[in-house]
Amino acid sequence: METPGRERVPCDLLVSARVVLTQNQDREVLTDGAVAIMGRTIAAVGPAVDLRRDFAPARDLNLGESLLMPGLINAHTHASMTLLRGAADDLPLMDWLNTHIFPLEAKLSPELAHLGALLGCAEMLSFGTTAFLDMYLLERATARAARESGLRAVVGEVLFGFPSPAYRNMEEGLDLVRAMHEELGPSGRVRTAVMPHSLYTCPPELLTKSFALAEELDLLWHTHLAETISETARAQHEFHQYPVEYMLDLGLLSPRSTLAHVVFPTPDEIDILVSTGAHVVHCPESNMKLASGVSPIPDLLAAGVSLGLGTDGPCSNNNLNLFEEMGTAALLHKSEALDPTRITAQQVLDLATLGGAACLNQNGQGQNGLGSLAPGKVADFCALDLTAPNMMPLFDPVAQAVYAATGQEVRLTVVDGVVRYQDGRYTDIDFPLLIQEMDKVRDWVKRNRA
Amino acid sequence: METPGRERVPCDLLVSARVVLTQNQDREVLTDGAVAIMGRTIAAVGPAVDLRRDFAPARDLNLGESLLMPGLINAHTHASMTLLRGAADDLPLMDWLNTHIFPLEAKLSPELAHLGALLGCAEMLSFGTTAFLDMYLLERATARAARESGLRAVVGEVLFGFPSPAYRNMEEGLDLVRAMHEELGPSGRVRTAVMPHSLYTCPPELLTKSFALAEELDLLWHTHLAETISETARAQHEFHQYPVEYMLDLGLLSPRSTLAHVVFPTPDEIDILVSTGAHVVHCPESNMKLASGVSPIPDLLAAGVSLGLGTDGPCSNNNLNLFEEMGTAALLHKSEALDPTRITAQQVLDLATLGGAACLNQNGQGQNGLGSLAPGKVADFCALDLTAPNMMPLFDPVAQAVYAATGQEVRLTVVDGVVRYQDGRYTDIDFPLLIQEMDKVRDWVKRNRA
Repeated sequence: METPGRERVPCDLLVSARVVLTQNQDREVLTDGAVAIMGRTIAAVGPAVDLRRDFAPARDLNLGESLLMPGLINAHTHASMTLLRGAADDLPLMDWLNTHIFPLEAKLSPELAHLGALLGCAEMLSFGTTAFLDMYLLERATARAARESGLRAVVGEVLFGFPSPAYRNMEEGLDLVRAMHEELGPSGRVRTAVMPHSLYTCPPELLTKSFALAEELDLLWHTHLAETISETARAQHEFHQYPVEYMLDLGLLSPRSTLAHVVFPTPDEIDILVSTGAHVVHCPESNMKLASGVSPIPDLLAAGVSLGLGTDGPCSNNNLNLFEEMGTAALLHKSEALDPTRITAQQVLDLATLGGAACLNQNGQGQNGLGSLAPGKVADFCALDLTAPNMMPLFDPVAQAVYAATGQEVRLTVVDGVVRYQDGRYTDIDFPLLIQEMDKVRDWVKRNRA
Repeated sequence: METPGRERVPCDLLVSARVVLTQNQDREVLTDGAVAIMGRTIAAVGPAVDLRRDFAPARDLNLGESLLMPGLINAHTHASMTLLRGAADDLPLMDWLNTHIFPLEAKLSPELAHLGALLGCAEMLSFGTTAFLDMYLLERATARAARESGLRAVVGEVLFGFPSPAYRNMEEGLDLVRAMHEELGPSGRVRTAVMPHSLYTCPPELLTKSFALAEELDLLWHTHLAETISETARAQHEFHQYPVEYMLDLGLLSPRSTLAHVVFPTPDEIDILVSTGAHVVHCPESNMKLASGVSPIPDLLAAGVSLGLGTDGPCSNNNLNLFEEMGTAALLHKSEALDPTRITAQQVLDLATLGGAACLNQNGQGQNGLGSLAPGKVADFCALDLTAPNMMPLFDPVAQAVYAATGQEVRLTVVDGVVRYQDGRYTDIDFPLLIQEMDKVRDWVKRNRA
């Protein structure tokens, strides 16, 4: 296929597939397409025949009947909670939290938090997720799991107005964020962010101090907001304001603010989200399982709010599977509106890719850009088997990814230009060892549960 | 392990697994359990060590870290429509039907219907479904696909008050059912049933004649009912009755009646469903995707209506995956009620197993019993890989199956005592050939679509 007299450009990796779903500005879909990668960056996207003519890859991977697409971005989760998947379900919210979840979390060790996060990372890679935004206790453990597994992550120690297993008071909590930022650096694959838990567990002082720290260190700021009716009612009662208004008045809303849930925004609050550039992470399965309510996502989309998609923790889901989450999101909002056109597969795929990139403050076109396959963007992608029985026949790859896929069709997950998962095998995770460690997890939970 | 002086009983197959979820009357869960099979029937269920002591199996299959459970029962689908998966989505219902679905269906050939049904059967086996209730055009093709693939099925030619590709008038339609019953017989793995489409496509005469035929031949009677608000409004307008009341007045409700959807029952109609013993098939993903509304399933459960679970056709889903359907059902009704206890994982699993068996009129304890693992019941089951990352750690196998599983953890599907699917390979389906045939399907759809 080489044209005589024409020099092929060396590259590190070339991956071709029957269908390439670029999610680029024109939402282009290529048949028999390919991606050429240099280092951690996409050098070119185009017809496979052209790229094989133009590039001399060190590794050439032809995936055949596969759907190559940007890796999905889980914009709100608590990966370590994978430890407690299925440990308590179908319970009233406060009973679930107070009797089952909080007592176990209070006894959590860094070793167990790491084990849970590593299992979560293994699961995310197997479902084609390439980046995640994570808030939890003992978050250095999650940072380590992300670094080891090869996933991209923005991790943040959860900040409360009371002591946690990781700090004795507010100032120590803020110092821990500062220390983690020094350890992880500003631009690596795994970074930290400032993550106060919520308006009902953090006094205003912690909220404003944490935001000031985020500004000082130029970090993302992430919190839960308006997840439940009672939280919204509490804000009205205590602060005489709706939650988003309260956040605005405290000066906490800007493009560095990513808010998980926001299930009950008023029209005024939607306007505030748009005008401040704050991001919202929709977690439909968790909101449904905990019976929190249905966020008016189509209204937020129509208004122009920056939106991502998250699984939330695996205890309220009970997996970290964004393919399932996409399907549920689309179906839920059609059903809620009694209108099958109310949200489209393309809109939902945008949430899980480009929208997630914005929620992680990593949607730039340059070296930091995530969420689409385009030259200059980081090489984070996955590929699905198009010969799985539920993936045939193929008419519309977007509909197939959102409505038909389960997530386990994923054959390949690449993060930062490196193959991290392929055909059930992990490059960096000792998965057989992880399976063995599950006995330890079960013993600990059984010993420590109420 | 043999006890001297004690004769082991020969059996055909013994399957053991780390966890056996029996769905028997006590909802027993066994650790290190097994099932012994003679012919098509379960001879024993118990601790693996006991069964290996008592039985001498011709084939001994130890699945290790797996979850063995009854096969799931898809109580309402249109398998041949797998042909059109993803061919048209996110459209208004009438546009979707009139512009995209009906014109293609009008041109359907038995060969294509068979190809679609065979792909559907392959998909169902891969997702641990062992039986399905199917209504469609040219249904002999689906009967053939079910027979070939090894699935259990109740298949019925859809009856309209107007001509179809399979018959020119009502009488010919009814004769076709009679002929299919003669071909398939009363008690085989694949049987027929009488399936008028709906009250708005069938005149009362066809509804009552079809029910009389079901009684004469002792067959199941299956129809769509109260799927949309407009259907319910039409019944009120034309018949001055709600749909279930109308069916009752025509004498169409009995334990042989299985009604798909019933999204809008009044309290009186719920009482009628209970008192007549008619079954209802809940299809949450299809109802959500087509934005039909949310059936009050927890009310139906509380009242004691016999309930099963279905995917509906793959065009409005877009897969035939009952594991996903179970998760969606549980989440939807929690969300709808704003109460996380409103429906439990166990209730949803019951719908997809024992409930489905009742919808197929095959819930007996004898040779015809489906839906649980117990001596005397038919050997229809599946097994899921418990070392998939999203299936660990394991605390509650029911929650894991309903909330965490995607369906593709299925490693083994057994129907009628025979292994039909194992580790991605089909016993009876030439799957590589099926993949090749998809080109034919795509060409046909592209040539014939509007």
